[in-house]
Amino acid sequence: MLPCEAIKMTDRLKKQLDFSLEIDKEKNIFRQTSLSGHGRKENDAEHAWHMAIMAYLLREYSNEPVDIQKVMLMCLIHDIVEIDAGDTYAYDPERLETQKEREQAAKERIFSILPDDQKEELTALFDEFENNETAESRFAHSLDNLQPLLLNNSNGGTDWMEHGVSAEQVYGRQRKTKEGSVALYEVTDKMIKDNIAKGSLK
Amino acid sequence: MLPCEAIKMTDRLKKQLDFSLEIDKEKNIFRQTSLSGHGRKENDAEHAWHMAIMAYLLREYSNEPVDIQKVMLMCLIHDIVEIDAGDTYAYDPERLETQKEREQAAKERIFSILPDDQKEELTALFDEFENNETAESRFAHSLDNLQPLLLNNSNGGTDWMEHGVSAEQVYGRQRKTKEGSVALYEVTDKMIKDNIAKGSLK
Repeated sequence: MLPCEAIKMTDRLKKQLDFSLEIDKEKNIFRQTSLSGHGRKENDAEHAWHMAIMAYLLREYSNEPVDIQKVMLMCLIHDIVEIDAGDTYAYDPERLETQKEREQAAKERIFSILPDDQKEELTALFDEFENNETAESRFAHSLDNLQPLLLNNSNGGTDWMEHGVSAEQVYGRQRKTKEGSVALYEVTDKMIKDNIAKGSLK
Repeated sequence: MLPCEAIKMTDRLKKQLDFSLEIDKEKNIFRQTSLSGHGRKENDAEHAWHMAIMAYLLREYSNEPVDIQKVMLMCLIHDIVEIDAGDTYAYDPERLETQKEREQAAKERIFSILPDDQKEELTALFDEFENNETAESRFAHSLDNLQPLLLNNSNGGTDWMEHGVSAEQVYGRQRKTKEGSVALYEVTDKMIKDNIAKGSLK
């Protein structure tokens, strides 16, 4: 290897490690979902880890064939922008209005820490998730919805009760689950109906 | 689809969702590594999430070509057994002695929640990681070592100081990093030497 190549490699690796250290902050971004067993609130990194494993194990239920490696990576990185932009609760209309703008600025700052080619790759993957127009992004959205629902349902719907969320709001959000997976939507629908019957969703 | 197939599908999905809910408990297994910015201790789910992203971004530094999807999945699931077995600190000789036995029992209980084919797949993947005899497992071990080192180094080596860990112990553990990635071992070596020079490692 030529000396200049060695220097370039070092600079590249430095950027990759700087980014790796930066994303550690995602562990401090807390969501509105409680862990199972009536635990503390979940953070974004844990949510992403859980989604990626569920995506892999449940891939047979995707409506369309998917590149599962791409789905997993999408799940893992889809909330990195929240390091700057914060978590936006799915049923908070005020914060939802400014979400896009906050996340665009965050995306530019955080992914720019990476070498250019990887900045481009992760930005494209993040945009693909957000635009929700491919089989992979649709299936990733199913998991983004199902994972917190599974926890909330296991706790008797307490997250919804805490925020006074209505069945109509939940069904509105879960529409995306169906676009990615009819089979997972059926489970979702059953959980929602159970919670309506129990009175934890109005 | 025949009715019996529909029933089988439901039973299969139920097992997959039961497993998905069970692994939520990994978020309550705390490690000895502190988050960057002198934060709280890290948990296993966050560690696995971080490792999987780092594996993907740093895959060019693997000594051997790897199936990166397999490496990522290995990273994501490698600590699931700790739900029952608990975290074993890398520099705790007493707990290290009983680690294998505790983890074997945990592996059997937890992966048995899955449908048989997925139990078999995840068990094999976990064993492959543990046996450390394939390119994928060697690279995954490099990340298992580098990820906490990156955090600890960013905090000035406080995790080592807290436990009175010696440079010799750290080098012993980091031997595995070199087997997976010489390039990542060079960074590791530099971080260790910096910490020795600063007095946080003796």
